[in-house]
Amino acid sequence: MLKSFARPPKPTKDEIKARTEAEQAKLASNQIAIKEAKVPVMVIFEGWGAAGKGGVLSRVIKDMDPRFFEVATMGARPTEAELRRPFLWRYLVEVPEQGQFKFFDTWWKEEVTTGVLLGELDRDAYDRRIDSINVAERQLIDNGYLVMKFFFHITQKEQRSRLDALAADSYTSWRVNDDDWWENDHYDECLRVYDRYLRDTNRSSAPWYIIDSKDRAWATLQVLEFLNSGIETAIQNRGIAAPIRQNVFPLRRTVPLAEIPLDKELDDDEYKAQLKALQARLSELHNQVYLRRIPVIIAYEGWDAAGKGGNIKRITAALDPRGYRVHPIAKPEPHELARHYLWRFWRRLPKSGHIAIFDRTWYGRVMVERLEGLCSTNDWQRAYNEMNEFERELTDCGAVVIKFWVQIDKQTQLERFTDRQNTPEKQWKITDEDWRNREKWDLYEEAIDEMLRKTNTTFAPWHVLESNDKRYARIKALRIVVEALEAAVAEREGSAGEGA
Amino acid sequence: MLKSFARPPKPTKDEIKARTEAEQAKLASNQIAIKEAKVPVMVIFEGWGAAGKGGVLSRVIKDMDPRFFEVATMGARPTEAELRRPFLWRYLVEVPEQGQFKFFDTWWKEEVTTGVLLGELDRDAYDRRIDSINVAERQLIDNGYLVMKFFFHITQKEQRSRLDALAADSYTSWRVNDDDWWENDHYDECLRVYDRYLRDTNRSSAPWYIIDSKDRAWATLQVLEFLNSGIETAIQNRGIAAPIRQNVFPLRRTVPLAEIPLDKELDDDEYKAQLKALQARLSELHNQVYLRRIPVIIAYEGWDAAGKGGNIKRITAALDPRGYRVHPIAKPEPHELARHYLWRFWRRLPKSGHIAIFDRTWYGRVMVERLEGLCSTNDWQRAYNEMNEFERELTDCGAVVIKFWVQIDKQTQLERFTDRQNTPEKQWKITDEDWRNREKWDLYEEAIDEMLRKTNTTFAPWHVLESNDKRYARIKALRIVVEALEAAVAEREGSAGEGA
Repeated sequence: MLKSFARPPKPTKDEIKARTEAEQAKLASNQIAIKEAKVPVMVIFEGWGAAGKGGVLSRVIKDMDPRFFEVATMGARPTEAELRRPFLWRYLVEVPEQGQFKFFDTWWKEEVTTGVLLGELDRDAYDRRIDSINVAERQLIDNGYLVMKFFFHITQKEQRSRLDALAADSYTSWRVNDDDWWENDHYDECLRVYDRYLRDTNRSSAPWYIIDSKDRAWATLQVLEFLNSGIETAIQNRGIAAPIRQNVFPLRRTVPLAEIPLDKELDDDEYKAQLKALQARLSELHNQVYLRRIPVIIAYEGWDAAGKGGNIKRITAALDPRGYRVHPIAKPEPHELARHYLWRFWRRLPKSGHIAIFDRTWYGRVMVERLEGLCSTNDWQRAYNEMNEFERELTDCGAVVIKFWVQIDKQTQLERFTDRQNTPEKQWKITDEDWRNREKWDLYEEAIDEMLRKTNTTFAPWHVLESNDKRYARIKALRIVVEALEAAVAEREGSAGEGA
Repeated sequence: MLKSFARPPKPTKDEIKARTEAEQAKLASNQIAIKEAKVPVMVIFEGWGAAGKGGVLSRVIKDMDPRFFEVATMGARPTEAELRRPFLWRYLVEVPEQGQFKFFDTWWKEEVTTGVLLGELDRDAYDRRIDSINVAERQLIDNGYLVMKFFFHITQKEQRSRLDALAADSYTSWRVNDDDWWENDHYDECLRVYDRYLRDTNRSSAPWYIIDSKDRAWATLQVLEFLNSGIETAIQNRGIAAPIRQNVFPLRRTVPLAEIPLDKELDDDEYKAQLKALQARLSELHNQVYLRRIPVIIAYEGWDAAGKGGNIKRITAALDPRGYRVHPIAKPEPHELARHYLWRFWRRLPKSGHIAIFDRTWYGRVMVERLEGLCSTNDWQRAYNEMNEFERELTDCGAVVIKFWVQIDKQTQLERFTDRQNTPEKQWKITDEDWRNREKWDLYEEAIDEMLRKTNTTFAPWHVLESNDKRYARIKALRIVVEALEAAVAEREGSAGEGA
């Protein structure tokens, strides 16, 4: 794309000035339109060092209301905390709220192409990054984000003369660093890598706009025109349904909930003996997981009063409290609702070596949000694939993902609700909403069966915990966690890192 | 305190076991009581290396519901992003929500005493830290936090034998680091510094509990007993009014709003000429501020329709968009309401070299929250001093704090409201709430006069911007910002750091 880039004809100075003023004014009113249409806008600036991204940015925002946009500078190398999470993480936690503009001074392109140029990313790793990026960008767009990507292009000669000029001036010399000189010295190699990246991530829903950046005023106008036109299209297209994609992930077969026998039991002695042994083993494994920097995600879903809380407690009792965190997931808060629905889970991802336990999860999308009409039909239908992609991203980074469905029958739920109602210390656990949900049992069961069927991937399968007898369910959960961690530790045998 | 610590008589093994089980059960029910009473609880563990904080923690939480507490490990040295903010910052952003327990595996004691032992903190710097800490702890407690501080104490000999044992076992050797050996080699020196710190931060509202940690079971029981008793006292005392402290900060005199003449004007030519010159100067200064790593906070308060937005825009127009952020402050979200009211502002503090502009601020506490009954009388009366302390903390770290009150008269507001109502592109700016607030003009004026009088400190004074003529107000604001930044840059002349 860069190699074949044909410079657009440059207008006269006066024409640039007139058109720029018109576009700046248009952007100011588009900003209000975006706010009212509640579209989140991400404007991404990538390009050659000294290509003038900062100067163009200042001109682009000139007439915008500074209260309703943000600028994020992402060019720094990832910190240790960031390196201990999936590659996408430090970017995705930055996505803006609905109705907000966010400008990014470099985005994941910079990190990936730098990785290739420094030889840190081999061909396979690069391909995986590209897959991750394409999935992430598509998910953002399918969920209503407008993503505008600009590449600021200048020639090697132009770059060299800018670097020389910046370096010569004591006011600006600090802006030039070794990476800039290196890039200029290796311009052709960089060009090849950038060109490849642009081609690999250029899709109709989020195309690259290459900006001829030799002249700053002209570059500004190009950005403004593309941006305004992109915004106008996005507002027009707002609310259109994104395609429901065919499943491409390997799935395991599932059994409908109604066919799962719930008569499994454990007597008290056996329970206590197994509990003790499994917790002791889990405790050792937690140490191993920590030393080998394996991230672990345990997701709990289940009927109200199925015994999730008590089950989780039997897991955590074996863990070092400094190495895990339980996330109770309630109704999203306004700032969470205003972003991609997975955002609040991205933010809660554990760093490597840590365990995150979710008490209810992202699957709320295809249960409560589906049944209560909290998202559109298209939203929840698309979500199965999006959640599989999300979990694939996690397991590809070496995470262990364990998903539990805690199952009871309707009669058992009634008994437990009644018990909660009648026991003063347990009354905080039961609300009117629980009773209302219970009335929709059959609808929920249908939704859950569909969820289990469509998201029971080989890399992040569901485990049903038969919990009419809570002791049985607890032992089964502990055994599954122990086995999953044993397998993960065995796979990394000999690759233990330093504790931190 | 440590030097004179008298070990409490240790009960028999059986007695420890029985009392521990009782206390664990009590803590589980206290956890629910805390949740219902909406008290936020911070439990801080400090102590000698290898004193067994982690093991005790595991036993303390044994019966707690893991969904309603968190553990934060704070012992790592501060990151670059943390070092570029006030010392207290990385701790205060971690405070828990109402009704939540949060355990901290070390807190600010660790950072301060390490600083003293490494010679990084001289006597003056140490004293400032102690002042900051005492103010911060008091503010948390006055705002309803329960802060329980434990120091895990063992002798030099005991520590040495534990370190030897840990190091000898391949399963645990990674837990021992050079700092632990250093601490043991310099036990007496450390003891002196820790003892001093404990004495300096031991107050009746947040006393230190020294835990005899030679025996882990006994240490656990001591913590549990202190913790349960602290919780019970806190629940009993919930809602009591904290003292309103006498002002100790130097104040400038203020003029009541009613006496401020609002006839100041600028003609268009003069406005444009001054605007251009001041923005050019501000633009240069932004570069200086960035290079010298000066944090800048500009706070805007003012009547609805006073022209805050347009005023802010004239400031930001001169700034590099990568170096500032405008924070529009609306009604707090639930997770913000559930914490200390300054928490949402701590989180938005700029890093050094950056500029944060607040469109409405923490002063909402003594205006809208006061007048709408969103906090208690004691809360807002206490807030004047708390906000002065907050700003003092910022300026002590070298921040420039500029506070603007944007002033118009009642008739001008009416004209602007009517104009907004009648102009389609401006209608989003006016809501029913604006009209309701207008009805309370006199009450607001009284509250504002009190606010200006009580928080017009010499280190963070208020500047009234007469904004019946918006042009006059914009030029005045620009001039004040330019002068403040010039003074700050001059003060640091010759101390320019590296750009980053």
